[in-house]
Amino acid sequence: MAHPLFERHRATLDAALEAIRVRGYWSAYSEMPSPKVYGETAMQDGKAAIDALRGQEFLLDMPGRIGAVASERSPYGVELSISYPECDPQALIDAGLAAMPAWQKVGADGRTGICLEALQRINQRSFEIAHAVMMTTGQGWMMAFQAGGPHAQDRGLEALAYAWREMSFVPNEALWEKPQGKNPPLTMRKHFEIVGRGVALVIGCGTFPTWNTYPGLFAALATGNAVIVKPHENAILPAAISVRIIREVLAENGIDPNLVTLAVTSDRKTTQALAVNPAVKSVDFTGSNAFGEWLKEHCRQAQVYAELAGVNNVIIESTDDYKGMLKNLAFTLALYSGQMCTTTQAIIVPADGIETDEGHKSFDQIGADLGAALDGLLAKPEIATAVLGAIQSSDTLARLADAAALGEVVVASRKIEHAEYPMAEVRTPIILKCDAADEGAYMQERFGPISFLVRVQNSTAAVALSERLVHEHGALTVGLYSTQPEVVEAVTAATCRAKVALSINLTSAVYVNQSAAFSDYHATGGNPAATTCYADAAFVASRFRVVQRRYHV
Amino acid sequence: MAHPLFERHRATLDAALEAIRVRGYWSAYSEMPSPKVYGETAMQDGKAAIDALRGQEFLLDMPGRIGAVASERSPYGVELSISYPECDPQALIDAGLAAMPAWQKVGADGRTGICLEALQRINQRSFEIAHAVMMTTGQGWMMAFQAGGPHAQDRGLEALAYAWREMSFVPNEALWEKPQGKNPPLTMRKHFEIVGRGVALVIGCGTFPTWNTYPGLFAALATGNAVIVKPHENAILPAAISVRIIREVLAENGIDPNLVTLAVTSDRKTTQALAVNPAVKSVDFTGSNAFGEWLKEHCRQAQVYAELAGVNNVIIESTDDYKGMLKNLAFTLALYSGQMCTTTQAIIVPADGIETDEGHKSFDQIGADLGAALDGLLAKPEIATAVLGAIQSSDTLARLADAAALGEVVVASRKIEHAEYPMAEVRTPIILKCDAADEGAYMQERFGPISFLVRVQNSTAAVALSERLVHEHGALTVGLYSTQPEVVEAVTAATCRAKVALSINLTSAVYVNQSAAFSDYHATGGNPAATTCYADAAFVASRFRVVQRRYHV
Repeated sequence: MAHPLFERHRATLDAALEAIRVRGYWSAYSEMPSPKVYGETAMQDGKAAIDALRGQEFLLDMPGRIGAVASERSPYGVELSISYPECDPQALIDAGLAAMPAWQKVGADGRTGICLEALQRINQRSFEIAHAVMMTTGQGWMMAFQAGGPHAQDRGLEALAYAWREMSFVPNEALWEKPQGKNPPLTMRKHFEIVGRGVALVIGCGTFPTWNTYPGLFAALATGNAVIVKPHENAILPAAISVRIIREVLAENGIDPNLVTLAVTSDRKTTQALAVNPAVKSVDFTGSNAFGEWLKEHCRQAQVYAELAGVNNVIIESTDDYKGMLKNLAFTLALYSGQMCTTTQAIIVPADGIETDEGHKSFDQIGADLGAALDGLLAKPEIATAVLGAIQSSDTLARLADAAALGEVVVASRKIEHAEYPMAEVRTPIILKCDAADEGAYMQERFGPISFLVRVQNSTAAVALSERLVHEHGALTVGLYSTQPEVVEAVTAATCRAKVALSINLTSAVYVNQSAAFSDYHATGGNPAATTCYADAAFVASRFRVVQRRYHV
Repeated sequence: MAHPLFERHRATLDAALEAIRVRGYWSAYSEMPSPKVYGETAMQDGKAAIDALRGQEFLLDMPGRIGAVASERSPYGVELSISYPECDPQALIDAGLAAMPAWQKVGADGRTGICLEALQRINQRSFEIAHAVMMTTGQGWMMAFQAGGPHAQDRGLEALAYAWREMSFVPNEALWEKPQGKNPPLTMRKHFEIVGRGVALVIGCGTFPTWNTYPGLFAALATGNAVIVKPHENAILPAAISVRIIREVLAENGIDPNLVTLAVTSDRKTTQALAVNPAVKSVDFTGSNAFGEWLKEHCRQAQVYAELAGVNNVIIESTDDYKGMLKNLAFTLALYSGQMCTTTQAIIVPADGIETDEGHKSFDQIGADLGAALDGLLAKPEIATAVLGAIQSSDTLARLADAAALGEVVVASRKIEHAEYPMAEVRTPIILKCDAADEGAYMQERFGPISFLVRVQNSTAAVALSERLVHEHGALTVGLYSTQPEVVEAVTAATCRAKVALSINLTSAVYVNQSAAFSDYHATGGNPAATTCYADAAFVASRFRVVQRRYHV
């Protein structure tokens, strides 16, 4: 008899398993913030729940408390002043290790069922989490709801489905009967235990505190590990709410809630010490190359699943829908002010321009038209602020201020006033143009609303530059606009070599920076932008080990 | 339509998939060296094939040839003088990379089919490979045949089955249709390509040149990687024959045979340079802790699958079959002179002795009786030499000579003359006794026929010591003799924590140092003795990446 929560959520799990098998469209959690789905008062309740936390201590009864941290500053200028318990890292590790044997005993079905229940509870709190995401990251409301709520939950469920699938292949026991000719067979009973590897450290980022945290969190948890979630110091709240929900579900099911804890600290050294602790056997990380490289360099005792930076790029070779292309690109550049790990930074265009359904367009014309498309998209302030959100960090603001010196400005960045949040730092994207030779400008990640039209000799040079960017600097996304089959084929081959996902001729409502759970493999793990994919078998299979015992029967 | 070789070997693959699903007894390749299976003249033909190679150049038409290496010295004292081409490592890497795109295009089914064909051809040459294994490793004939032939092939097939299973979960393409309310759905076609990660380096060991090489070799190859096999300098021939067979099968199927090459060198620096080459994305290694740690320390660009050393141990707490236990242990210690990564080194016994079906046995009595069991097993020289084989390396001979100083000798090591090979260095095991406190003696791997009866205070201390040995020094095997359910339970829990396989009360014809393909998970990857298991999903899942492209339809 499987665990009751496994049975309760079996249909969801089965659908997720089918989704990762066929990788078509599927979603477990409604992306429409509809009162019919989430309740008539969900919107007000969610906002009220967050407002009630402001200025308060966030209650989490964790061991080894040594102080409190209240480090979040909202990009919307809203005073948060939420204080989180800071705990001795070793106390969190010890507590996690102590909770693991009982968690292992629940079995793969029990662990998966409990994780499914936790995801459902998280889903029910989507409005609250969305407000937390919005206030801490600067995302616009709809994006905070979708990417921070149901889409993040879908990614967590996807990782859970992979974890369950791999665990389900390990039989609990086997009867081994080896024939011995005319003699009776040699017979053994064998038992196979799935055991977690130790403590999993999941380090979140400041821009997507749930979307980039749930996959590692649920993959590690389901496979039998204790988990310490270390959120970005400016985006603690969404993680804290999620961790509290998971702890509640664990406790309800007789599991020590300290299996999952929250580590808050403003001191990088504390995080580093956690990451190299011998008991930590996996580190999930989203963030800067610098810290990612540090982790890869120092965390020999752990498997590191890192999503770092890259130089995402789009090749424009030709198009049969010039307007659609411009609109699509403009939205990509504007969405969350380009503060996505998937946002295009380099737009590679032949010097002689391109052929389109509206005739030949010169390199300069494309820049001007893209600027106009951006202006059109962002013309109404209420739409502009909804799409752009606010700039998440002062570093990004500084990068944006300095960007104008990196090339010839095609489209200048503007500051936009936010009607509801007057303190919010809202900025439109800057687009510069430069030659392929100006590598110092575009050939490193410049996180935020900064992109470059890069002039190359011809389409062959465009393909070569795109491939080189991915090989050397990494990328999560490459886009291509071309009506020429041989160009599509060449870029297909180049992206296979460089191991990066390719989107071809996006001119409607799918964007190169969007990745759909259960269908799009997010990152490949095959170029410098990431050591892993969300989610595939490799993302889960090394998170547990199989321990056997055997004896004659 | 699947690849013809995939169809031809489909039944074998399906049976292997079923075997890894249930992990009961199964084998694809007959372990009996029967003329009915392998041909009436297989024995003579195999030996003749090896004899014909002696004193010759081993032909392998590989790129970048810079010289020749003839480093093998047979532990049986037979002159081999086989010369292998030495190639510029970068030339091997470049050739492998050049061969990869066509290999990728064959698809998962084609790659798997070609690997299955290669394994079948290897199986047909089992006698030849067995002679090569025997002559280079010092294994006795039957062991060389079984472990070097069908058992190694089974392990290769097992890895192949895992690789195929994981690859088969990646759909070639998907249709993604996202509902848009009353509007037509957003529709995209997505293609998913499985791409190898780069060049795989497979570094073999001197004692099991096929058993420990085939899993990594076939896992890496099937998942789309080029493979460079770097055999141990003293056990090149079995790998060279295997590589040549694979290259023949590749060429017959239109694949550049330089996809799989052999790197021979007597210079560790050359191997090190290969291992850190940026194009090398995985390293499979079996061998010493020192080089394994070097690999883990330096190969940041590659996933390292390492099987290192450990202190395997057996706890003797009580038994209801004292004679069976002694016979079983004696065989384990004697087989291939203890030169197995799974051989027991520490036999942990309570100071007060144990209860048995023959009454109480004191600590000293157990030592004496184990010595008598060894003497009985090895009484006839022809049986002794068949079981013991020859000592593979001068290092092991030296360790054995020095071992007598490590404690009180219970059973001395003897030199035995080999009737057929008078130059063979055949030695019986030494058994010493010591106290648990004599950690300097038994608490590091002493590879070869050296083991210790370790006196502990009581059974609780025995369990604790066993667990600590595994945690701190690693182990592939732990054994337990006990009639007490609470002791079995305690050791079960301890081995789960320490992540090591447990064999309980082996008193007949299964030995703690034996691991059966498709059923026993060999190593867990969860303690210092190994970073991986042969074979499970984690052994294969990170060897490939998925690259997608998508476009509207």
